[in-house]
This record gives sequence, structure tokens and C-alpha cells, in this order.
Amino acid sequence: MARIVQKFGGTSVATTERIKEITRRIQAEVDAGNQVAVVISAMAGATDDLVKLSESVSALYDAREYDVVVSTGEQVSAGLLALALRARGIDARSWLGWQVPIHTDGYHGKAQITKIETAELERRLADGQVPVISGFQGLGPDNRITTLGRGSSDISAVALAAALNADRCDIFTDVDGVFTADPRIVAKARKIDKISYEEMLETASGGARVIETRAVEMAMKHGVRLHVLSSFVDAPGTLIVDEGEIVEQEVVSGIAYSRDEAKITLTHVADRPGIAAAIFGPLAEANINVDMIVQNVSADGSITDLTFTVTNADLDRAAKVLEERREQLGYQDLISDPDVVKISVIGVGMRSHAGVAQRMFQALAEEGINIQVISTSEIKISVLIAEEYTDSALRCLHAAYGLDAA
Amino acid sequence: MARIVQKFGGTSVATTERIKEITRRIQAEVDAGNQVAVVISAMAGATDDLVKLSESVSALYDAREYDVVVSTGEQVSAGLLALALRARGIDARSWLGWQVPIHTDGYHGKAQITKIETAELERRLADGQVPVISGFQGLGPDNRITTLGRGSSDISAVALAAALNADRCDIFTDVDGVFTADPRIVAKARKIDKISYEEMLETASGGARVIETRAVEMAMKHGVRLHVLSSFVDAPGTLIVDEGEIVEQEVVSGIAYSRDEAKITLTHVADRPGIAAAIFGPLAEANINVDMIVQNVSADGSITDLTFTVTNADLDRAAKVLEERREQLGYQDLISDPDVVKISVIGVGMRSHAGVAQRMFQALAEEGINIQVISTSEIKISVLIAEEYTDSALRCLHAAYGLDAA
Repeated sequence: MARIVQKFGGTSVATTERIKEITRRIQAEVDAGNQVAVVISAMAGATDDLVKLSESVSALYDAREYDVVVSTGEQVSAGLLALALRARGIDARSWLGWQVPIHTDGYHGKAQITKIETAELERRLADGQVPVISGFQGLGPDNRITTLGRGSSDISAVALAAALNADRCDIFTDVDGVFTADPRIVAKARKIDKISYEEMLETASGGARVIETRAVEMAMKHGVRLHVLSSFVDAPGTLIVDEGEIVEQEVVSGIAYSRDEAKITLTHVADRPGIAAAIFGPLAEANINVDMIVQNVSADGSITDLTFTVTNADLDRAAKVLEERREQLGYQDLISDPDVVKISVIGVGMRSHAGVAQRMFQALAEEGINIQVISTSEIKISVLIAEEYTDSALRCLHAAYGLDAA
Repeated sequence: MARIVQKFGGTSVATTERIKEITRRIQAEVDAGNQVAVVISAMAGATDDLVKLSESVSALYDAREYDVVVSTGEQVSAGLLALALRARGIDARSWLGWQVPIHTDGYHGKAQITKIETAELERRLADGQVPVISGFQGLGPDNRITTLGRGSSDISAVALAAALNADRCDIFTDVDGVFTADPRIVAKARKIDKISYEEMLETASGGARVIETRAVEMAMKHGVRLHVLSSFVDAPGTLIVDEGEIVEQEVVSGIAYSRDEAKITLTHVADRPGIAAAIFGPLAEANINVDMIVQNVSADGSITDLTFTVTNADLDRAAKVLEERREQLGYQDLISDPDVVKISVIGVGMRSHAGVAQRMFQALAEEGINIQVISTSEIKISVLIAEEYTDSALRCLHAAYGLDAA
């Protein structure tokens, strides 16, 4: 007997038909003699509608009342799934955040879970009942409903799996699992059977949106074994587990990309101590996240060019912040380019293998693709290239690292 | 300073625009220095949609989960109204049934309020805050959400007004108040300024749907002064108060009608003791409500005709119940007629005035309208007539009792 948390995302419960369909997935685990707790998102589109309602009443809304409104999305789907399970003869009941309770801090709209009271849930699980828990919501210290931020039902599920000491947390979504590359671009991409938490985190920050990054971090911290799989296809997905659980480790597990990048270059910046702080300080204050940074070595040690990336959404704001400080920073030109893409090669195996980066540079060179910026971490090498080369870069790298399906 | 409960129905909060509009009504009372608590219904149509969702998942739904789903309607509108009030600069916050809490019994889907904890609400009211309370919902003994049955936000409002010892309970709706007759039929109908609880109850049971009958009963029991008015028109509505508060009492306050009546006649019934019980017992067991009953005096004391009314919806079922017992009951024919209407003349003044019924019979006779059944209560005279005469009967009676507007 295992204890399993199953989480179903918005597309898995988009219609009442689909809600009825997923009861089959829950039934299968119950029939196998397992204890099952379910975490559920709002029906696809429901949360957007509720956010729009709030915004149309009050553009600068009070986050506490916003939470009252938007949390109804998961309340409805939890009630409906419990109804569907009971109609199937499965003993189930819905649990809202305040009923469990899932305690959170008081940051309405983006609260963090502080404690989950599990005694009652464990009693029900032991009795064979299936708790259907509303994701995305909790109970704040003021006895009011809090929400955990958009897309955070994954976090609810992992936190619950950790609190319940679950053997596995199944994340049902609309993709088959984690792939070696985006299968819409790389036809030879393969589904990965097992991937480490670290690789998954780098893959997610590389642009792949299979599961919330914060949920993976939490799973890693608490050792929750994640299983990402499709609610529409009857096939195993991808297990996200501790590195030690992966016996045959590939050097490179996958290639990720992110189009949500924009490049800014400041030319003729004085190469003096403190200049980086003077540039990036104001950006940080403006809440603009800077990703890749490269500073050219200056020929005479006095003047240099500085290049970095921000998200496309932040580009205009970042440029404005820097234009306002042009005199103080003393650069010549600000050149921005939104048409860039970040390509990342990821694998825990590269820690112990040399030449991984060289193979990347070689493969891109053979395709005639110019590398604009490079950044590396322990298990990832990222390059910035012109956006037009996205597809060819992904395909040639996928082949170069031997990831192509046979 | 007065303490006022304002209740807004579904049409008053049908859109975010209307939600913003009604904040003006609340502002007016706050500006007048009054303490205001607001009770809110779901946005018009929202509850129907939620009921449909539940039914499409599970036709024979679990009432506890049904309550989880449908209660979100009032949760959304309470959050939105609190947002709108705060955007207007009014200190407001939403209160869900479980937060107040509004305790109820455990009859999910049609729960009754058992106790409302008001200490925290009273503290907020004293601080000048406006509590916006979700109508229709409460907290059951199992710590789960209960709902009070369709249209029961009126009951939430009256119960809250009673618990808070409010000076008045304003029921905002889409009509201007209670009229001497349906103004769509009787052009000379007048809005009634004050009406007694008893008259209002008879008017409602006579077919006028301005406010939930159970809410009026509760108001009468607890001495809550009700004010029914339009949220769309800036004008006083109708006060529903204790009879003693109405100084100039009309003999007849209004004429009501109900088309939801069907007549059944059983011919040649044996005129023996116990025959009425034998006929109406099985109907009561089938949960069929019988309204007017008339038994003709038989010529020789042995055989009689029995006529009574049921709602149109129950007609077929009632006929079936009686057909199945034809032999046992020993009647000759069962004649049913759905095309009848009940016309009622209502007024507490008729207790002390003779000739009120006679004026009704006279007026109908002058119009050539045949009376099929008559029933009377202390403050109401009802007659059953052919449905085609509805309009002419209402108009002639309205004139006959001197109710026509000048």
C-alpha cells in the first residue's frame, strides 16, 4: 500500500466531462489499495474570469477581497470532483483551504504555506476516504482566505505530499511528461523517464513550463518524489526525483529554450570598480530581474561594453531606468534587442564530464549560428543567440548530445 | 444613529456596473451616520449556472458537495462588493457564512439558521466598518458549508437584522415595493407605503413574489421592520411592519392572484365520516399540497361532489394518486382543470368590517364572472375563477374596494 497525492491541473478539469474522466485515474489507485488524496485546480479559464471580475470592479484591488473572489474557482472544482467521485461509488469529500486547514502567512494574493494540519486527513485516508483538496488556497492568520499566487496548485500538492509523507505526488497535466527538448520543434525529442530535481529546476528556468519551479524546489527540499504525466494519455510520465535515484545518468538530459529574453548593451562604460553595482542596483530597485551578464575585457583597461538580458516584459522599463541615469553612469549608447533566445544544455552529468560546453559551441558553429552571450552553472550551459535560429539550434544540439530518438 | 441591514438581490448585483452602483445606496446610509451591514445574493444567473454544473456531474448529487459548489455565488459577489466599497473609500470587508459564523443545522441544501455569532460584527459596526455578508450560506455542525435553499438571502438578511437588533432591514430588489395589485395588469395599482406582516404573508401566498415568505414570517416573529424597495429607483418602497404601527388601516390593502392553481373535482363521493381523510391522506403522503377545498352538501345526505386545488406542477401526480385509489374511494369521475386562477382580497381591516366578502361577490357577479370555489381566512377572502377572467377580476375588485389611484 502506498500513499499518493494526485494533482489535476486546470485543463484536466476544464469541463464536467473531463472531471468525470479523471475519476478513472483516482479509481485506479484506490482499486490498487492505495491511499489517495487529490489536489485540484480551478476549471481552465475560471480563475482568469474571476480576476477580470475583480479588476473590473476595482483596478487597484484589495488583495484580501481578491482572494475571496478568485479562491472560488478551486472551491467549485473540488466540490464537482467530489460529486463525480461519489457518483462513481468512491467515498470522497471536498476540503477547502480553511477546512483542512492549510495555514499560510498573511500575504494575500501570494501567500506561503506555513503549516498543514493533517491529523483529520490522515484519519480519513486510513478509513479509505479520498479527500479532494482545493489547491491554490489557504487560511491566513486573520482567519481569512489566502491564495498562493497563480499556478500554485502544484505547490499545494507538493506541500500536502510532504506533510502527509506521501510516497509519490502525481502532477496530472496536458503534456506527457518532461522531454529532452520541445517536441513541437524537435521531432526526435524523447520523453525523459527520470530527471533530477536540479535538472528540472534548470529546465524550468530555461523556459519549459511543465510544473511550477517553486513546487520543484519544495519537492527537492522535502524529498517528495514527483511524477509529471498526462491526464489524457494512459502512459507513464516523467519521475522527478533525487539524483541518487537515477542509476544511468546521461551527461546531458535535455535542451531548453526561452524566447522571453531581451538583450541590452551599454557601450563605452567606464571600467572602474563599482560600475556594475551602479548599473544593476537601480534595476534591482525597479524589481527588474537580470539574467545573463557579460562584460567585455577592455583593450586599455578603462572603457568596456556591458551586455545583459532581461525579460521582454521588462525591456522598456529597464531602458527607461538606465536612460534616466545616463549621465551618472557615463555610457555612450544603449542598444536593445528583443529578438534573442536563450538556449540551455542541462545535465547533472556535466559536473564530471569535460568538453560538454565545447561540443555545444562546435555544434552551433557548424550551423553558422553566432553566440552573443554565454553563461554557465554547475549543471547548465546557456547561450544567447538570434531568435531566428531557435529551431535549428535546438535540433543540432539535440543530435550533438546523442539525444535523438532512434 | 440607526443600525441598518441592507440586502441586495441578484438583479441588484447582476453586473460589476450594478455592483458599483449600489455602493451609492450604502454610502448614503454611512454618510447619514448609520451603522450598516450588507447581505448579498449571488449575481443573477450565477446560482443557476452552478446548479447546472453540479447536476451535469451528478444528477443525484450529494447535498454537501452541492453546497460547496453553489455557495461560491455569494462568495464572489460579497468579495466584489467589498472591493467596490473600498474603491469608494468605505471601510468594508466581506464575511462568508463560516467566518461570521452563521450556524445552521445539518440539512444541506435547505439548512435553517440556528445561531448567528454577532460579537465580532458588532465590534466592526461600532468601528464604522461595513460588513458585507454572503447570504444564502452558513456553517453546519460538521464544519462544512451549508446553504439555506434557493432565494434564502432574504432569510439571511432578516436573521442577521434580528441578531443585530437592527432598526430596519432594507430589502433591495427589482420592484418598487408592494402594490395594491400587479401593476402590469391593474394600471391604477398604487404602491403601498405600509403593510402589516400578516397582510404581506397572505399577499405572498396569494402569488406576489416580492420577498420570501419565510423571511416575512421570521421578521414578524422577531419584530424586524422590513423595507422593500427598488435598487434602481431613488424612492421609498413599502414598509412591512407590525399591525400596531399602521395608524390608518385600510379595510382591504390589496388584491393578489395566483395562476399556479389547478382544480380537481371528484364526483359522487360517498358522504361518510373519514372520506376526506381517505382522499387527502394519500395526497399528503405524496407531498402534494392541497389549498382550497369545498365539499357540496348532498341532497339526500349520501353522495356528494368534492372539489379542491393543487399547484399546476402537482396536478398530474395528484390525479395519478387518486386514480390508483378509485375503487377504494368509490368516486365516479375525476375532473381536472388547470385553467383556473385564485384571486384574493387581503386586509387586516376586514376583521372588524362586515360586508367585505359580499362586495367581492357582487363585483364579480356584475362582471359576469362565475365563482367556482371560495375560501376565507381571518384577513383574506379567496375565490377560484376561470383563468381567462384574471385581468377583469383584478381590475373590478381593485375599483370596488376603492384602491384605484386618483
